[in-house]
Amino acid sequence: MMAPPPSPLAFIPFVSVENMMRLVHHFGIEAVLRELTDAIEADYLRWSRFEKAPRLASHSQEGVIELMPTSDGDAYAFKYVNGHPSNTAKGLQTVAAFGLLARVDTGYPLLLTEMTLLTALRTAATSAMVARRLAAADARVMAMIGNGAQAEFQAIAMKAIVGIEEVRLYDIDPAATRKAARNLEGSGIKVVACETSQDAIEGAQIITTCTADKAYATILSDNMVGSGIHINAIGGDCPGKTELHRDILDRATTFVEFEPQTRIEGEIQQMDASYPVTEFWKVLSGEVEGRTDPRQITLFDSVGFAIEDFSALRYLLGKLEGTEFFQQLDIIADPDDPRDLFGMLQRAA
Amino acid sequence: MMAPPPSPLAFIPFVSVENMMRLVHHFGIEAVLRELTDAIEADYLRWSRFEKAPRLASHSQEGVIELMPTSDGDAYAFKYVNGHPSNTAKGLQTVAAFGLLARVDTGYPLLLTEMTLLTALRTAATSAMVARRLAAADARVMAMIGNGAQAEFQAIAMKAIVGIEEVRLYDIDPAATRKAARNLEGSGIKVVACETSQDAIEGAQIITTCTADKAYATILSDNMVGSGIHINAIGGDCPGKTELHRDILDRATTFVEFEPQTRIEGEIQQMDASYPVTEFWKVLSGEVEGRTDPRQITLFDSVGFAIEDFSALRYLLGKLEGTEFFQQLDIIADPDDPRDLFGMLQRAA
Repeated sequence: MMAPPPSPLAFIPFVSVENMMRLVHHFGIEAVLRELTDAIEADYLRWSRFEKAPRLASHSQEGVIELMPTSDGDAYAFKYVNGHPSNTAKGLQTVAAFGLLARVDTGYPLLLTEMTLLTALRTAATSAMVARRLAAADARVMAMIGNGAQAEFQAIAMKAIVGIEEVRLYDIDPAATRKAARNLEGSGIKVVACETSQDAIEGAQIITTCTADKAYATILSDNMVGSGIHINAIGGDCPGKTELHRDILDRATTFVEFEPQTRIEGEIQQMDASYPVTEFWKVLSGEVEGRTDPRQITLFDSVGFAIEDFSALRYLLGKLEGTEFFQQLDIIADPDDPRDLFGMLQRAA
Repeated sequence: MMAPPPSPLAFIPFVSVENMMRLVHHFGIEAVLRELTDAIEADYLRWSRFEKAPRLASHSQEGVIELMPTSDGDAYAFKYVNGHPSNTAKGLQTVAAFGLLARVDTGYPLLLTEMTLLTALRTAATSAMVARRLAAADARVMAMIGNGAQAEFQAIAMKAIVGIEEVRLYDIDPAATRKAARNLEGSGIKVVACETSQDAIEGAQIITTCTADKAYATILSDNMVGSGIHINAIGGDCPGKTELHRDILDRATTFVEFEPQTRIEGEIQQMDASYPVTEFWKVLSGEVEGRTDPRQITLFDSVGFAIEDFSALRYLLGKLEGTEFFQQLDIIADPDDPRDLFGMLQRAA
């Protein structure tokens, strides 16, 4: 006797890397980034509804593997993500990720997906969401220091959401800058490849730092940062990894995602626990003012937070409806009688 | 221009529910349970090498969703698992799970698999591993109180690893007992369906309790437990959920998996923090004696621990080699140049 086929309950949609790429092209990357930014902002406005905890990190000599869970009481999401700076030399991604969305009321998964691309998108969307509120209203030029895997996503999000027209690229490896410049051809952004970081920040109202070295580095020193600048610091995101000189932190007004996590992982790990920071959701809710002076230096000390992944997963699930950009994965054992797991196994013989 | 196909690095093996069932039948459930027991025991003997933490639980009114990570420095594993007692009434599994194994040195996944069936197998293997050391050497009869999804797996593991010949079934729902009795026909185990728990424990040297109510319940009261018994308590596994009367705990010598987790989730949550327990790995390593007296009551207060999932995942990965019991999942974005994630996306257009 043939075993009956699995029931529909047994399947959940899975979005492969291939399908994620098809989906982004189908809807258009700028549209996806704009919608994702709004999705994240909408969840930031429900901040108090979320269960929040610093991510669960497993550190090794080579890098870190993290689990980032959160829940709003209706849906539960987590992301698995690694960070291994030495991977690049092995021909591997520094960051690879996948994630899951589930129902809180039954614990059943709703969606499993690659999240390497989705993380690049949501990180860029988060940067843009914050810059839209904190950068100077007339910001049109961004310096992009560190031209690795995240660079082009940042540039396009800052164009689509903040109105950036020119991106000035710098990387210690000129090949990375050439790669980013080539990829941004035809994006509608004026791209200027620079030979020094000093040159890159010339005329920029936004400085994005995104380098991957796992060591206390100084990508930006104090004398490089003029008044009125918004710094979008996304590279310093784990213990021992920072990009900014602490003198910049002393001059800046600093915004973070979730303070307990950023104290451990962000640029502010260099500072005393008394160093003042504002959780960015308070700017959105109107509880705290964002930029209060055109000469103020605003700093978004971004490390990536679970709610952004939650938003991205829910957004993706919504976009899948009516498309073919997923496959069905038989990941849930679903016997006819839920107590009869063994019988299901037995009948499959 | 067609985008090139994903590279081999992009794929990881995925074991669906269907393939897990095929694999178990291919190798035979008793052989799988025996090998799994030995795999878990081997890892328990390396206890100090593992990174250990109580699982990360997200509680709701309806149940709990948990992430259970661990690492031995070479491999990293985690399991996603829910516990929703009310699911049964909705025609859903109380427990559904999946898991992942990854390399620590690169953070890249090695295996993704359903773990509802695999958890049932590893839970039974863990119970048998402990009973093999703690139950009376001549134990041939087991009482099985609670005849839900885990019952048959327990019975077969106790037969294959401990030598149990007779299983006495009891459940408050006679339909569950009929289901378990029917499923165990032809297993080589003498099955006796009982109408009371008192009847079920008659002549048993091992009592396994595995009920799913999320409330302080008393499945076993003190007068029911005679001398020399080994109690395998697997149903009390989250805060507020216990099965044994505390008087039994007062008389028993209690063994646990990982003390900090069991204090929160196990039967011993009823007791003071000073209530003495022994982590079972110490019995295996010879640091502590197991059963010291034939009249002693030994209790395994089992809640399930991440190392058991780690062992199960590594065991499964080894068994897959040379078989067809998996499919390849395109879950890792793998651009030719790891820094060129955007270019990979662009070329897929």
